Amino acid sequence: MDYWFAEIVTIGNEVLSGKTVNTNASHIGRRLTSLGFTVRRITVVMDDIDEIVSAFREAIDRKPKVIVSSGGLGPTWDDKTAEGLAKALGVNLELNKTAFDMILEKYTKRNIPLTEERKKMAYLPYGAMAVENNEGIAPGIYIYHNNIDILATPGVPREMENVLENFINKMLRNKPNLKYLEDFIYVENVMESALAPYVKELVKKYDIYIKTHPKSYELLRPILEIQIAGSGREEEIKVKIEKVKNELLDAIKKLNGIIRNSL
Amino acid sequence: MDYWFAEIVTIGNEVLSGKTVNTNASHIGRRLTSLGFTVRRITVVMDDIDEIVSAFREAIDRKPKVIVSSGGLGPTWDDKTAEGLAKALGVNLELNKTAFDMILEKYTKRNIPLTEERKKMAYLPYGAMAVENNEGIAPGIYIYHNNIDILATPGVPREMENVLENFINKMLRNKPNLKYLEDFIYVENVMESALAPYVKELVKKYDIYIKTHPKSYELLRPILEIQIAGSGREEEIKVKIEKVKNELLDAIKKLNGIIRNSL
Repeated sequence: MDYWFAEIVTIGNEVLSGKTVNTNASHIGRRLTSLGFTVRRITVVMDDIDEIVSAFREAIDRKPKVIVSSGGLGPTWDDKTAEGLAKALGVNLELNKTAFDMILEKYTKRNIPLTEERKKMAYLPYGAMAVENNEGIAPGIYIYHNNIDILATPGVPREMENVLENFINKMLRNKPNLKYLEDFIYVENVMESALAPYVKELVKKYDIYIKTHPKSYELLRPILEIQIAGSGREEEIKVKIEKVKNELLDAIKKLNGIIRNSL
Repeated sequence: MDYWFAEIVTIGNEVLSGKTVNTNASHIGRRLTSLGFTVRRITVVMDDIDEIVSAFREAIDRKPKVIVSSGGLGPTWDDKTAEGLAKALGVNLELNKTAFDMILEKYTKRNIPLTEERKKMAYLPYGAMAVENNEGIAPGIYIYHNNIDILATPGVPREMENVLENFINKMLRNKPNLKYLEDFIYVENVMESALAPYVKELVKKYDIYIKTHPKSYELLRPILEIQIAGSGREEEIKVKIEKVKNELLDAIKKLNGIIRNSL
């Protein structure tokens, strides 16, 4: 299997301290997975220039096909993603004409002056492109570097989602020719540990991803969600998942499991 | 300021693909922050032995005071955290007597045989201690290495929380003598970018953490949550936060902001 690896970087102290749950990374993860990418790592770092630089550098060194970050693109003192990304790439920040026009237009429309803090959002790493943000002001940042599509999105979820879609539709160069498919079985009365040897064998036999998610108390009233997932050519992966599902249903029968339609 | 850095490692493909939102990391982050730690990084990696090894190794190399992981401690083929942690520490897995007894007791009480898959949960890195899991079967793993408290907890939230508390109460050696405090201001009608220069100055003046979280559309009807936070000696940090809050309220008044009691 040829994997198309992706990485996600989240910038923000509020995520590290647990104040904010990292739903941005989940959204980006789901979206990249749906395109056929395999997300290999999520890194959450502080609003600190050295931390941001090292997160981007380390991600780049692992050579994924795409890196998507969120957070740190706004007008405040602790919005340091553009600077961190530039430093990680070894380039300077420069006033980006497109970004400047996007920002200027939004403020002047409403008769709001362009202060230094607001203008800051127009400085992008040299060689980067501004990505339209239809839900807010700070544009996203896109740069193609060492064959990696790198996108920085704002931290406000609505803006992140919009910038991500604009990037996918207009800029993303590395598009996997793979399809991701998954299916689920929900079962009652089977312990995860009882199903484990069957799952292990099937994973080996079919080279597929199977994961059991225990959803209740293993010893008292075990309920399992079984996920069968894979990426590949659509027809091939469809057939494989179907076969695996049937073998799992046989095993569940042997173990006196009760199939449920949902959790 | 002397920071007590902490790191969090989450193991699980379902978090990377966005299927599961990483609420475990948020819980661990909040708990460690409440103890006075500063969480510096969260790393999410796949259920893959090399990925787990590198996540632990990299975290250890950054020399935090504590590392807490979640996920990958169960009985299935893809539960690889114990093996990954052992490899990262350069030790072997060995059958841990305490862990074995904990697991055996839980299964025999209910007349369930101890299969190989179930016994697997009793193999811990050499030198590690088993941490009681009152909510499930797989014990947590605690090891003190290079002056770092390292804890591995299961991925089921209820079990993770329980193991984490048992660790904090009975095992954690590096306890910060700091207090973390935070306060919030909610304000309407002030743009984040308008408040930015004031915030920047206050951060510099007081060496404190201030972050503005935009909760609505900046241009249409701006609503901001302003977080003022710091760790230190309790009385000192209390006074500092109070001073910063008053200066911020003055700035908000100048900007015609409307103070709200909540979001």
